Amino acid sequence: MAPRPSYRLTRIPEMTIRRLSVYTRCLLQLEEDGVKTVSSQELADRFNLNSAQVRKDLAYFGEFGVRGIGYYVSGLKAELQKILGLDREWTVVLVGFGNLGSALSRYKGFARQGFRIVAVVDDDPAKVGREIDHMPVIASRDMAREIKARGAQIAIVAVPAESAQTVTDQLVAAGIKAILNFAPARLKVPRDVRLKNVDLSIELETLSFYLAKGSRS
Amino acid sequence: MAPRPSYRLTRIPEMTIRRLSVYTRCLLQLEEDGVKTVSSQELADRFNLNSAQVRKDLAYFGEFGVRGIGYYVSGLKAELQKILGLDREWTVVLVGFGNLGSALSRYKGFARQGFRIVAVVDDDPAKVGREIDHMPVIASRDMAREIKARGAQIAIVAVPAESAQTVTDQLVAAGIKAILNFAPARLKVPRDVRLKNVDLSIELETLSFYLAKGSRS
Repeated sequence: MAPRPSYRLTRIPEMTIRRLSVYTRCLLQLEEDGVKTVSSQELADRFNLNSAQVRKDLAYFGEFGVRGIGYYVSGLKAELQKILGLDREWTVVLVGFGNLGSALSRYKGFARQGFRIVAVVDDDPAKVGREIDHMPVIASRDMAREIKARGAQIAIVAVPAESAQTVTDQLVAAGIKAILNFAPARLKVPRDVRLKNVDLSIELETLSFYLAKGSRS
Repeated sequence: MAPRPSYRLTRIPEMTIRRLSVYTRCLLQLEEDGVKTVSSQELADRFNLNSAQVRKDLAYFGEFGVRGIGYYVSGLKAELQKILGLDREWTVVLVGFGNLGSALSRYKGFARQGFRIVAVVDDDPAKVGREIDHMPVIASRDMAREIKARGAQIAIVAVPAESAQTVTDQLVAAGIKAILNFAPARLKVPRDVRLKNVDLSIELETLSFYLAKGSRS
């Protein structure tokens, strides 16, 4: 295990980061199954990955393999978690408490990975002041204060498209540095703020690709 | 434009398919902006892509560039839509009508890409028999009949983890060939059924990666 002390962010494809998340999940499962060491080939075979890709992705961050042994499952998992920032807790605000916001507020996967939603923002008078699973619902006029008080760095935007840019501007002004956007809107953020748009139809399109191909061949 | 008549599915990385969806969206935007032709470099610059990657991804499917011109925006868009199976309509059943299911049933992006939800399945007596935006809510005992009658090939699973495998087995028995799973459960499907798991925390992890790196350097 010799992680590189410093890697250049610009060199690392976002898809590599995405795959690190996948590898971490695979390693977690191996750990649960009591597996101590694994080769990139075994990892690839078991989880339908590409072994050359695994090695290439990991190479951005250091030399994790041990000749004749492969990877130490727990050690590599811990390294990847550290690289992904999963060795700490992140405070998150969720903006929008409609159906999607409700579903996201209850999404167990976030907390499990260290993303703790500390406040839900919605201007519906029927919702403001309520508390859902220890998350207070606050009005948007109190959002900036709450973000600063809680030191929140990440926001999830789950509002309708037409209010998404206004909300985003407010989040940025309040000091949010990373936004996960579910609204079907093209948002503008300053260069020092990371924006990630979730487009759920892309997930369906990888399925229709295979179905379309199957029906043609 | 000389699309390859036949490409081997096994050779094509899933990430390439995912990027084809992204390219299609970029081309749609260029088309809306009145742009007629674009080079891979311009495409990459404008949408923060990697031009070598664009060329490599497209090369799996044919020779789309024209020397000295680049790509014809509308033509390439149409080709990619055809490859992704977006030149036709897919009938989809949505299983689970809780918060997430509700949000997904109203997700405009699906219909825009040709994915039409024809029925929502939920066993809550308060929901069965209702109609939401022309989608009937049916009980799971009627699901197989509805799938066959509608010729649905794709299902979206948005039920709690503990019922996800049961639902999946029923869907497969009813003839569903592709499943988009939102339940935090590891599902088993036969080899001829495509399963895609959506893990929303992966999206947050690409953000925490950049935040973690930023705070360390």
